[in-house]
Amino acid sequence: MRVIFNEEMKAVADDLDHMAQDVRNAIRKAGDALLKSDVEAAQAVIDGDAEIDALEASVIDQCVKLLAKQTPVATDLRVVVSTLRLAATFERMGDLARHIAETARRSYPESPLPDNAKELFCEMQAFLDETSDNVVAMLADRDAKIADRIIRNDDKLDALHHKTFELALSENWNGNNQQLIDVVLLGRFMERIGDHAVSAARRVVFIVSGFDPSKEPTLDEDGAVD
Amino acid sequence: MRVIFNEEMKAVADDLDHMAQDVRNAIRKAGDALLKSDVEAAQAVIDGDAEIDALEASVIDQCVKLLAKQTPVATDLRVVVSTLRLAATFERMGDLARHIAETARRSYPESPLPDNAKELFCEMQAFLDETSDNVVAMLADRDAKIADRIIRNDDKLDALHHKTFELALSENWNGNNQQLIDVVLLGRFMERIGDHAVSAARRVVFIVSGFDPSKEPTLDEDGAVD
Repeated sequence: MRVIFNEEMKAVADDLDHMAQDVRNAIRKAGDALLKSDVEAAQAVIDGDAEIDALEASVIDQCVKLLAKQTPVATDLRVVVSTLRLAATFERMGDLARHIAETARRSYPESPLPDNAKELFCEMQAFLDETSDNVVAMLADRDAKIADRIIRNDDKLDALHHKTFELALSENWNGNNQQLIDVVLLGRFMERIGDHAVSAARRVVFIVSGFDPSKEPTLDEDGAVD
Repeated sequence: MRVIFNEEMKAVADDLDHMAQDVRNAIRKAGDALLKSDVEAAQAVIDGDAEIDALEASVIDQCVKLLAKQTPVATDLRVVVSTLRLAATFERMGDLARHIAETARRSYPESPLPDNAKELFCEMQAFLDETSDNVVAMLADRDAKIADRIIRNDDKLDALHHKTFELALSENWNGNNQQLIDVVLLGRFMERIGDHAVSAARRVVFIVSGFDPSKEPTLDEDGAVD
């Protein structure tokens, strides 16, 4: 049974790695859509979301079959349950990248952002590009050190997100109401991608270190630990 | 084993019902905080969120133990896996109610909403109060008819949410930028609560009808089915 479990779990892990890579690419392309008015990139993210959804469904299906046929316990069980939740997290990150792409497509050929908000969003995008690279690397190597870095870095994204509100409330703000709505929603989508990356990182720490799930810190929506 | 499984599953189901009730109460009180400037209600929602988080941790813990010790298959396994995801959904609904309460507390004693947005938010709140009652009833009775109603009704919330943008972009808008930010974020929080209710309803339909999870429709963030 053990050999079969390891083989089947390897197949699920490959699908999960694939999801993380797809999400990383979606986030990067959504950034091109938003910051370079690349409407083809926007369309690619929107069209590609179905593949991420299909991968999630495949991961869930394989995990349920593993639970039924292999009846894993201890570490194996922890890995299967965590895999279910990681798949849900990546699926949401894909949705959020799609929302960014949809916002960029709607305002094309104009940018949805007023000029003086672009630098802040470039910084947020650079942060998310790096974070999504880290998520892929963390997952491939089950690397708790990278996971730690993702968790610790999230404050930087929150600080950038906070600055978008400061800008919108300052005398320097020169956008219209549509642009303000977009800045608020885009900022929220990007902040949530960061939160989900932190959630994935906590899950990997949990797999590696194996502490009791009932004592696992829950992720606050604002990126802080409750 | 079967008797033990049923007994232990009943304890988990009770905790899940308890979560749904706590979330319903949090949504109702968040509405009082937002629409009646009831700062004590706001504080109660904020303070009460830890209990919802603790219930989620307890549900996860019990489900993992059930999977390890009872090795459920078929319908039982489907119920356990769905319970894990329902708990995550309710935990997020609690977070969103808390965010509404925090927004109301921050602007107290003023409302965060400009006067001409209040009617729309009252309608959204009435919708969420009814929906969260439906979630509690659906869960207690595993009632697929109520689940169906939750899924079908969600369009109404999306339409109300859309109207908040129309108002913000119309000549009737008379709020300042802080109010516009709050209208956008509050609308988003409320819409997401509705989306999560739909997600919970789909999960209950899945438990009752038992179709293949790989063919389960995923919930789009905007409440539509992908």
